[in-house]
Amino acid sequence: MTESGKPILYSYFRSSCSWRVRIALALKNIDYETIPTNLIKDGGQQFSKEFQALNPMKQVPVLKIDGITIGQSLAIIEYLEETRPTPRLLPQDPKKRAYVHMISNLIVSGIQPLQNLSVLKQLRQENNLPWAQKAISSGFQALEQILQGTAGKYCVGDEVTMADLCLVPQVANAERFEVDLTPYPAISRINKTLLALEAFQVSHPCRQPDTPPELRA
Amino acid sequence: MTESGKPILYSYFRSSCSWRVRIALALKNIDYETIPTNLIKDGGQQFSKEFQALNPMKQVPVLKIDGITIGQSLAIIEYLEETRPTPRLLPQDPKKRAYVHMISNLIVSGIQPLQNLSVLKQLRQENNLPWAQKAISSGFQALEQILQGTAGKYCVGDEVTMADLCLVPQVANAERFEVDLTPYPAISRINKTLLALEAFQVSHPCRQPDTPPELRA
Repeated sequence: MTESGKPILYSYFRSSCSWRVRIALALKNIDYETIPTNLIKDGGQQFSKEFQALNPMKQVPVLKIDGITIGQSLAIIEYLEETRPTPRLLPQDPKKRAYVHMISNLIVSGIQPLQNLSVLKQLRQENNLPWAQKAISSGFQALEQILQGTAGKYCVGDEVTMADLCLVPQVANAERFEVDLTPYPAISRINKTLLALEAFQVSHPCRQPDTPPELRA
Repeated sequence: MTESGKPILYSYFRSSCSWRVRIALALKNIDYETIPTNLIKDGGQQFSKEFQALNPMKQVPVLKIDGITIGQSLAIIEYLEETRPTPRLLPQDPKKRAYVHMISNLIVSGIQPLQNLSVLKQLRQENNLPWAQKAISSGFQALEQILQGTAGKYCVGDEVTMADLCLVPQVANAERFEVDLTPYPAISRINKTLLALEAFQVSHPCRQPDTPPELRA
């Protein structure tokens, strides 16, 4: 935390995992300071000694809050949910919570790690786009089917949940990797509805302290 | 659930994600029925129409319980924790819970997906072993450092938590991929301590209904 007691978020404007946490902070109306961590510049600032001491996984996001340092976006969101429960991001009904956790993990473990920058860097450059597209579209096929059974206005019912915080940044990645979204009408509809909410707008990659001028909107 | 009301676990003996859930079921003393789902045989039984209707992600584990069907190991474990809270797999202190979630997610999102069978199948065969070794050792380097601050007898303090359910199956994968574990004394010590517990033994890949005779122990 800063001297004034504000939580500090180590974030990269374009990181979808950072965006998940930024949405949670915005929804819960938590005032915080951003320390931009550029994953490209200087060979990747997450590889610096200082950053590695903070998060040995060399990944953003990292949140310093209440005297502890937390890595992994879902771990951060769960902590915020437990210590700042309003508004709720997990339904009270355990079965609905199970669906929220299932969808969140489908994205966070089943899709995003496979199209992560650090993985793509290990492939030949010409394989990057098809690899990322395959990871995303195969996950989205499953997700679209699951949403038929769980979705209301949002991923699970009519309240914004942790699953929605995972969905929107993953759709943005899909668009970046030029994945055709027409086979996924439920995903597209929910994404559009969520993007109209203020918390999703202020946390958007195009509106961060480290967003380059040419990408600002 | 079966007609007798028992939960049904779709599992593959060797799947590390299935093993996580088997440990939770054993620790919580939940009686269940296993439906073996062979990820190799018949081109992969997870690709059958029946299985895809159950879990569109085409992955094990899947748990049918209390009238719902849950995929994603951490979602299943969280549901079991909420509905069958004894013994507890998440500490009561939110900061310790945050460490448990962080370590669990580090393994479940940061390591396992990169050395998953479905990913390795997309690489050239000669690249499989080095790719998997790199994913595991880079995650273990981070984890070893994190454990210096969180571990007691187990990953977080002196009680078995969800983090331990993720650790042991991941160490087994490391051994399968011939990762040298000597740089990870904390991981190795905690793994050994956990493997002495009955719940980790009865759920072990070498003791499942679908374990081939030559791999039984």
